[in-house]
Amino acid sequence: MTGAPRIAIDAMGGDEGIATMMDGVARARRAHDGISFLLVGDEAQIKAGLARHPNLTAASDILHVEGVVESDEKPSAAIRRSARTSMGRAIDAVKRGEAQAAVSSGNTGAMMAMAKLALRTMPGIERPALAALLPSLGETDVVMLDLGANTECDTENLVQFAVMGAAYARIGLGIKRPRVRLLNIGTEAMKGKDMIRDAAAILRDAPHLPMAFQGFIEGDQIARGEVDVVVSDGFSGNIALKTAEGTARFVTDLLRRSFTSSFRSKAGFLLSRPALHMLRHHLDPNNHNGAVFLGLNGIVVKSHGGADEIGVANAVDLAVRLAEQDLLRRIASDLDQFHAAPARAAS
Amino acid sequence: MTGAPRIAIDAMGGDEGIATMMDGVARARRAHDGISFLLVGDEAQIKAGLARHPNLTAASDILHVEGVVESDEKPSAAIRRSARTSMGRAIDAVKRGEAQAAVSSGNTGAMMAMAKLALRTMPGIERPALAALLPSLGETDVVMLDLGANTECDTENLVQFAVMGAAYARIGLGIKRPRVRLLNIGTEAMKGKDMIRDAAAILRDAPHLPMAFQGFIEGDQIARGEVDVVVSDGFSGNIALKTAEGTARFVTDLLRRSFTSSFRSKAGFLLSRPALHMLRHHLDPNNHNGAVFLGLNGIVVKSHGGADEIGVANAVDLAVRLAEQDLLRRIASDLDQFHAAPARAAS
Repeated sequence: MTGAPRIAIDAMGGDEGIATMMDGVARARRAHDGISFLLVGDEAQIKAGLARHPNLTAASDILHVEGVVESDEKPSAAIRRSARTSMGRAIDAVKRGEAQAAVSSGNTGAMMAMAKLALRTMPGIERPALAALLPSLGETDVVMLDLGANTECDTENLVQFAVMGAAYARIGLGIKRPRVRLLNIGTEAMKGKDMIRDAAAILRDAPHLPMAFQGFIEGDQIARGEVDVVVSDGFSGNIALKTAEGTARFVTDLLRRSFTSSFRSKAGFLLSRPALHMLRHHLDPNNHNGAVFLGLNGIVVKSHGGADEIGVANAVDLAVRLAEQDLLRRIASDLDQFHAAPARAAS
Repeated sequence: MTGAPRIAIDAMGGDEGIATMMDGVARARRAHDGISFLLVGDEAQIKAGLARHPNLTAASDILHVEGVVESDEKPSAAIRRSARTSMGRAIDAVKRGEAQAAVSSGNTGAMMAMAKLALRTMPGIERPALAALLPSLGETDVVMLDLGANTECDTENLVQFAVMGAAYARIGLGIKRPRVRLLNIGTEAMKGKDMIRDAAAILRDAPHLPMAFQGFIEGDQIARGEVDVVVSDGFSGNIALKTAEGTARFVTDLLRRSFTSSFRSKAGFLLSRPALHMLRHHLDPNNHNGAVFLGLNGIVVKSHGGADEIGVANAVDLAVRLAEQDLLRRIASDLDQFHAAPARAAS
């Protein structure tokens, strides 16, 4: 692309309010010279949120839209009034080429539905996937997809998710040749469902792709730091993501209970505070913010609903990098390369 | 059943060796008057392990078998030499009525294959399921099934898993009317796969069953203490179980890293030891030991491979209770009740 990108921001989507969204966007702007913003939502509230940020104000246009997608609104209802909502108009700006990426902290299902309808899937991609970043013991986060955009998937979908996830990891994690694995219930070649074994056979047969395909991975290995991209159907991926979130909360809840169980433990807790702060920092979703709908003709980043200033800044930063480094062109060229290679087994 | 049960023990299966197995069995015996054991494996080693336990020795017969199923042995290979292995002979004792339950800490896949072949599924049960206990924030553990016995499942399988899981929870957790939910990627009625929605419709229509069916549950709610039985196909269940195990280890690894990051943190760690011990105790698999293959004509309990004395004792204790309270009859009568009810939708 030419010049610094412009990012469309759904100012209304976050649980923390517009001021937090503006603080986060302003923080991201400071890290990227030249980028500009289209801030979509209630003009008066946006202006109030901008008051503390003259530099962001100078880099932004405001698009006044009154409607807001509710957090519990059904996707089918939301898409009918898409053009009257801040989320729908932010995505629409990407479709029109008025912005190179859109960021929203709103309703995930509605966002997926709107983005699919407005941007359509890329040529050759059957289904888009939702990819997110998970913490790990390794140097970087882990990209995981699909996290629920597709309840049922086939072999071809999984192969395309692997290609798209690797392209995302090259930009999002800065890894030249990401290690890619398929989520399965065992690591031996004969384990799991046919569609997963077939996808593995196809990916093993495509060594020319810019990824290191390393077979299967089980749920207990996702966070060990030995994989960069974990690929699964949307049902299993959503189960794994939610179970990981729930278990992390369960363990930290137990830890809190334990620490308040006696005076001695409370004293130990106070002394251990910096250590526990490190733990909280590592698990904080704000430090792994930015899920992306891959496979669409446009970049749409989903920020956590409860994202704070840092979280919003991370999501916007990701959107900028994906636009600057042209995620869509990378995916398209990887897919071309994949389909062109003579060695590849017919799928 | 009449009289105290006899439990067949695969003495060779555990990673911790025969002595630990014998210590665990002896501990379980002390809690249950009158039960007896059939100890299957290398006679000399078993006798050495029994040396410290005269009461257990008096309550036990030894069946000398030289062969051992290896932990990495393929199920297909293991079943061919089943009759020459300690695991196979322990299961065989249940088949012949020489024992009312079998316990092994060995290879799960081999155990499933041998148990299916030897004991066959109960009348009316299409597929057996592997059920295990998971820690939770609630008063009791959570029963989860299937954990990998069946890669692909249909509606009827899920319904039967719910009935079997509830029967297991009534005995294993001592809950009169267990709260049962189906694992899904959302809680609204229209979410997820057809087979799950159909299973939910059938279970909602069967209020006469001794369970409280409460619809769907997402992965992040499993450990919150608000459900007693979580039902899923074997693929998703295995992914959820492994992801939960991996995440718990991930968080505790991070905690350890954090605590060793500075002198102050180390001091806090020492002071907090009792609290951290509580946490470890709550998460320790030995305190949630005893997975069961449900739906077979016999009770087979899978103990963790790395179970210690307490873990083995818990698995044996579970086997005794399942035998004493006649799990198989309960499942059969629940299934009869389920099929007899006129209100039930045809499946």
